[in-house]
Amino acid sequence: MREITSYSNSTIKQIRGLRSRKNRRQSGMFYIEGVRHVGEAIVNDFPLEYVIYSPELLTADYGQEILAIASIKNIDLIQVTSDIFNSLSMKEGPHGIAAVGHEKYFTFNDIEIKGLWIALENIQDPGNLGSIMRSLDGAGGKGVILIGDSTDPYHPTAVRSSTGAIFYLPILKSSITDFIGYKKRTNIFCAGSSCNANTSFKEVDYPDDVVLVMGSEQKGITGVLEGECDILVNIPMAGKVDSLNLANAASIVLFEIYTRRIKT
Amino acid sequence: MREITSYSNSTIKQIRGLRSRKNRRQSGMFYIEGVRHVGEAIVNDFPLEYVIYSPELLTADYGQEILAIASIKNIDLIQVTSDIFNSLSMKEGPHGIAAVGHEKYFTFNDIEIKGLWIALENIQDPGNLGSIMRSLDGAGGKGVILIGDSTDPYHPTAVRSSTGAIFYLPILKSSITDFIGYKKRTNIFCAGSSCNANTSFKEVDYPDDVVLVMGSEQKGITGVLEGECDILVNIPMAGKVDSLNLANAASIVLFEIYTRRIKT
Repeated sequence: MREITSYSNSTIKQIRGLRSRKNRRQSGMFYIEGVRHVGEAIVNDFPLEYVIYSPELLTADYGQEILAIASIKNIDLIQVTSDIFNSLSMKEGPHGIAAVGHEKYFTFNDIEIKGLWIALENIQDPGNLGSIMRSLDGAGGKGVILIGDSTDPYHPTAVRSSTGAIFYLPILKSSITDFIGYKKRTNIFCAGSSCNANTSFKEVDYPDDVVLVMGSEQKGITGVLEGECDILVNIPMAGKVDSLNLANAASIVLFEIYTRRIKT
Repeated sequence: MREITSYSNSTIKQIRGLRSRKNRRQSGMFYIEGVRHVGEAIVNDFPLEYVIYSPELLTADYGQEILAIASIKNIDLIQVTSDIFNSLSMKEGPHGIAAVGHEKYFTFNDIEIKGLWIALENIQDPGNLGSIMRSLDGAGGKGVILIGDSTDPYHPTAVRSSTGAIFYLPILKSSITDFIGYKKRTNIFCAGSSCNANTSFKEVDYPDDVVLVMGSEQKGITGVLEGECDILVNIPMAGKVDSLNLANAASIVLFEIYTRRIKT
């Protein structure tokens, strides 16, 4: 354990810098806030640079437990005053514990796509990405593939809305070309969600190994990727709206697949 | 049409004030931003105080159409410079058109609960509320009942994430006592979504007239309201997460109900 008492300490400055995507990208590190998320990261052995805490603010029993586990796991612990901690905190009512983690991305060389996965092309909203990972885990999914120019899964909003799923579900990053290459090599079944589809998501037999492919909030999946899918499905809709929120749509299809699996 | 050229004009100040919930509540008015949302409000005859636009910024054809329709409908039009418009705008890349609307709430005296409705008790997140209304419309739902201490449906984030549904789906505000009173009087079927439920949402026969009852993001529905539901349902889950995002959960159940209806 070491103690930092100055606002201008280089570590404190570095943490503050992680609010910007540019700094996250350059350093490969990101900020994790709150008892729950820091706990999930530690329990799941997610790679952490250090844990930072303020004894005055960290009053919850679970917070103390997390510190103890971090200590056993030899994670660097940094103690700061409540004022310094509050200066780092991005939300109201900070829990007095935070961490800096190392972004973790897989490629098709590291991991085999088996079971239920979701692939998201050019997804823009970090809150959507986080809550999709939460739903994916709830639906027994195995991981997420980010295709193309996607939002940052280690954005604070994505971390928060994943409620921890980001720390144990693998995130694979891929260009569209690499994804199509993998698809052709392995013949993994891809079901694309598209407004252009004529088949309802209810009418499809999803095999055990399946990638649900969804596109960006504004544009959906690109024509190129659509063309590579084994089937295109839509969500039938009434009303005046012409589409659903991406995370809501993903959750609807994921739980259709999941509830069928547990039924049989 | 009238023109405002001063930042300190009282109307301009009033609009800026609508960023705060307190001012929205006191005035009963709210700010609507963007071509799409202003268009939805006008087309659906939502009560507007005025439409405000900047000719330099309003370049889209659809924007011109909206102005023409607003003029035909005798809506007060206010022209401002691009600088003033930008000072009001809450998002990047404003479309050059906005409006101020009158909050519209129904009670059980105004409207009969028929078809598919959703009741949300103490919902906290305006983004969730908006996207639930979007999903509700897509699922053929008829309206939303806000029970207890809920977030503001006319919060800019709720308006935006509803993609316009907020302008044509009725919003009914109710205390928990009034809701229970209405339920007892009319015997409307209430399906409550709860972690304490033993029945999967897949195993229920939902009647034509049904209220899906869901609780707050943090706490779910209260015990009192649970006790009044005809059935409690859960969403079966795998993985480590212990719950889903509220809007995702609502969408899953709403589309289960809707897709069964269109099937028969």
